[in-house]
Amino acid sequence: ENRARLIIKCPDQPGIVSAISTFLWNQQANIVSSNQYTQNPKGGEFFMRLDFEYQPGTNIEKLKQEFQEIADRFQMEWRVSLVHELKNIAIFVSKEPHCLLELLWEWQSGDLMANISVVISNHENSRQLVEGLGIDFYHLPITKETKQEVEAKQKDILEDYDIDLIVLARYMQILSPTFVDVFKNRIINIHHSFLPAFIGAKPYERAFERGVKMIGATSHYVTNDLDEGPIIEQGTEPVSHEHNVDDLKKIGQSIERRVLAQAVKWHLEDRIIVYGNKTIVFE
Amino acid sequence: ENRARLIIKCPDQPGIVSAISTFLWNQQANIVSSNQYTQNPKGGEFFMRLDFEYQPGTNIEKLKQEFQEIADRFQMEWRVSLVHELKNIAIFVSKEPHCLLELLWEWQSGDLMANISVVISNHENSRQLVEGLGIDFYHLPITKETKQEVEAKQKDILEDYDIDLIVLARYMQILSPTFVDVFKNRIINIHHSFLPAFIGAKPYERAFERGVKMIGATSHYVTNDLDEGPIIEQGTEPVSHEHNVDDLKKIGQSIERRVLAQAVKWHLEDRIIVYGNKTIVFE
Amino acid sequence: ENRARLIIKCPDQPGIVSAISTFLWNQQANIVSSNQYTQNPKGGEFFMRLDFEYQPGTNIEKLKQEFQEIADRFQMEWRVSLVHELKNIAIFVSKEPHCLLELLWEWQSGDLMANISVVISNHENSRQLVEGLGIDFYHLPITKETKQEVEAKQKDILEDYDIDLIVLARYMQILSPTFVDVFKNRIINIHHSFLPAFIGAKPYERAFERGVKMIGATSHYVTNDLDEGPIIEQGTEPVSHEHNVDDLKKIGQSIERRVLAQAVKWHLEDRIIVYGNKTIVFE
Amino acid sequence: ENRARLIIKCPDQPGIVSAISTFLWNQQANIVSSNQYTQNPKGGEFFMRLDFEYQPGTNIEKLKQEFQEIADRFQMEWRVSLVHELKNIAIFVSKEPHCLLELLWEWQSGDLMANISVVISNHENSRQLVEGLGIDFYHLPITKETKQEVEAKQKDILEDYDIDLIVLARYMQILSPTFVDVFKNRIINIHHSFLPAFIGAKPYERAFERGVKMIGATSHYVTNDLDEGPIIEQGTEPVSHEHNVDDLKKIGQSIERRVLAQAVKWHLEDRIIVYGNKTIVFE
Repeated sequence: ENRARLIIKCPDQPGIVSAISTFLWNQQANIVSSNQYTQNPKGGEFFMRLDFEYQPGTNIEKLKQEFQEIADRFQMEWRVSLVHELKNIAIFVSKEPHCLLELLWEWQSGDLMANISVVISNHENSRQLVEGLGIDFYHLPITKETKQEVEAKQKDILEDYDIDLIVLARYMQILSPTFVDVFKNRIINIHHSFLPAFIGAKPYERAFERGVKMIGATSHYVTNDLDEGPIIEQGTEPVSHEHNVDDLKKIGQSIERRVLAQAVKWHLEDRIIVYGNKTIVFE
Repeated sequence: ENRARLIIKCPDQPGIVSAISTFLWNQQANIVSSNQYTQNPKGGEFFMRLDFEYQPGTNIEKLKQEFQEIADRFQMEWRVSLVHELKNIAIFVSKEPHCLLELLWEWQSGDLMANISVVISNHENSRQLVEGLGIDFYHLPITKETKQEVEAKQKDILEDYDIDLIVLARYMQILSPTFVDVFKNRIINIHHSFLPAFIGAKPYERAFERGVKMIGATSHYVTNDLDEGPIIEQGTEPVSHEHNVDDLKKIGQSIERRVLAQAVKWHLEDRIIVYGNKTIVFE
Repeated sequence: ENRARLIIKCPDQPGIVSAISTFLWNQQANIVSSNQYTQNPKGGEFFMRLDFEYQPGTNIEKLKQEFQEIADRFQMEWRVSLVHELKNIAIFVSKEPHCLLELLWEWQSGDLMANISVVISNHENSRQLVEGLGIDFYHLPITKETKQEVEAKQKDILEDYDIDLIVLARYMQILSPTFVDVFKNRIINIHHSFLPAFIGAKPYERAFERGVKMIGATSHYVTNDLDEGPIIEQGTEPVSHEHNVDDLKKIGQSIERRVLAQAVKWHLEDRIIVYGNKTIVFE
Repeated sequence: ENRARLIIKCPDQPGIVSAISTFLWNQQANIVSSNQYTQNPKGGEFFMRLDFEYQPGTNIEKLKQEFQEIADRFQMEWRVSLVHELKNIAIFVSKEPHCLLELLWEWQSGDLMANISVVISNHENSRQLVEGLGIDFYHLPITKETKQEVEAKQKDILEDYDIDLIVLARYMQILSPTFVDVFKNRIINIHHSFLPAFIGAKPYERAFERGVKMIGATSHYVTNDLDEGPIIEQGTEPVSHEHNVDDLKKIGQSIERRVLAQAVKWHLEDRIIVYGNKTIVFE
């Protein structure tokens, strides 16, 4: 259909909404929904997401060129994305398939509007599942020695499939800084704890040792500080003394599934704006 | 401060946001936050709430007159409310004080921006609490025979205090239709069930009898159909076979407190638009 | 392993726990966990679930015979179930597969300890999924005219597979009274509303019409009063004016999946005792 | 009434439940509710809480003496507490009164079964509230120089009032090790974060900086490792980019109130057993 989204970040000042909405009105576009957030009306940053319907036959490239004038006037960072142009996703996964399964499920039922182009794993065990759905699967085992070489292969694959978003669906390898830099704010990870509690390895084991009464999961964009990237979504569930480490993992898996799928959907719908080390999420 | 809210309802069509935001821009007003909802971009209803900062010295009456032209063009129902003009609340309560207490607590801690002008009860037991906070208290017992007469007294009091909003904080009397008509969409009730389950009397007893595994509470605007008015907010909590009716009441009280206080705050902040028998709530 | 569960219901009186635990102690069995509930210590009903480990080589039939003496003394209804004897499940499903999928998923990951013996559907669309997992699938379409005949076929299948539990995983047909009687307290249904709200057809449509702010789902044992059987578990999620009927269905599906799977697991672990039209659930 | 609770910890082995329940049966006592937990049936620790009704006129001291024999046989740590003997509470509070208010509210409405004997604060602002309810209030300001002296005064007061439990209801002073040792497992604190995230000062400020999407609160027994004591209960609520530090504090306060009151009630009902640095909570 003729739906597009306009995402904007600029210094706040009077007249922004008027300028944008008048521009769209002149294009005979209709604003379907609109979200905005200002840190501070005096001198803060202004963020906006507009969902609009444009006239059939609208030349989008021309529309963008014309909008650039407004963007310049207000010093905007901005982009327009067309709803019918689906983003290409690559899913990275290790042995535990629950997050991968959730994404595939949502995708099959039409709730995850994207192309799942390829799944890359350092284990073989998900191949059948993935290929059974007609998605390409690459088994790329990793060792310390081969890491650089494997990442090079991964990059080639990502390029071949023209990937827009990488989802680390319980991928238990740390990506190298150069890899991360290439995909800034385009790699979403799920960490199996309520960050910043239990950064790093074995969070469920450590949660059990500490005797917490709730566990959680956190989806975030990957940066080169481990588990320190901009948080997108978090979830928690109560636990008790009766739960051992395996129980925590089981309960945690359902939180992970939910929290990762939510983050991916928000990204695909252009609802997330990264600002510093935080996110603005227009739900 | 110089903050105001513009609340709008009109048939959806292109150009509304442009017209409004350009109007405010010409008034040198700055939009601080904005929410909109459209049922259907083609021929549905459009709803909007704008929170804006106007220039010191702005003549608000003049601003309203000028806005009327836009309002006419788009067939708007609309209003402007000034943030510094606090609304006057009357709280009606019967014997159980927990909802009254919650509202007074929120009010004392500065979270409920209103004047609690008067408390009216058919019981004496809350007098000390209310008067201790410097709020006027009226004890108006009700019987079938005196109902009409008492409602007349209540109306006099409401007029004397220039009341904008009536909150039924567990007031166990049914208001007569003429009373309700006078305060259309300005009486908020808390019903102690998850509506439409357990409409009417003794919902906790009936929830216990049915063996439900969750109980709830519902805040809604009062209409002349008992417990059928537009729902504002609902909450639930899990219960088990171990809970008897008294336990359900106890658990329910904390839901009631939360759900009623939330509804009142949203009303005070002009976040609720009634549409048919439903509400649009701009959180 | 050598694990068993003892489930008891009897009039409350002193000495029950002593008698049972001494019996097990004399059998050299070790109580692993124990739950009890008494409606009223004076003259109410007493309910108990004991999870115990028996000695390797214990003759369970003999143990049961010996326990009968205690059972008689306290007028107990009781049963012993062995953990390693998995129950046989038949899943009935219509067109929407999300609840079926959830159960299969839990079963594959080892969290649902049962044999899923057979899936029966009045639609063809889940065949591939089911048979792909090595589970038998029967397509039995139903019309008013063929209902009696189809139910006879269903009963034959259930007998052939020696089914202990029927799960109605969004099966949109009403079972006849004679069918229900045969499987008393052994048919679990998921209803797509927060009962007793929206009993019957099209609950999401009616929830939308009413403008509720939360929706829910309810798992219950099937009786011959539609949606009136003993409730096992309920869940809710918040919704808003922005959600249309399709959105409610989507949000509701994830509640249904969770609430049904929970009920089935509790049943399989003998955690549910039906009492009148209610359930005691020993979590 | 004639209600008591028996709390037990011992190495797990067969025969414990039999011995205890037979003992109570011989005393003509009736078990009203029972909870048990075993870490591991082979060689782990066993924990039990029994709620029982004893015969009017029972000599409790004699009952305890006779139970000692069973306790010796199974190497039990144990205690009996009588429900009608209310525990004496001292509440410590600094400037923010919301947790104090919650406890007083629950106490007034009969939900917190204890004597609130005294409130001690390093600020004056809660005096009127506390004394208005007939509870003694001590204003004991603290500086680095006077800390030792003030703690000595506090200890005298606690002794004078025969205090069983100290509740730190947002008391912003760190107690000295000697003080803590005297009240081991009898000081409950509320920390305004989801531990182990944001240990120490200014957790809401740090949560804001980190951009978390949920905040929490934790009630725990105080040990001499700051915020590292056994966790009793935790709660969380979602937050968004729209919330500033003050909003987080406001949302957090309602979590703190709930989580602290819950922990205090569980302690008063002898539902908590501390084991290592963890708690077993028999809800």
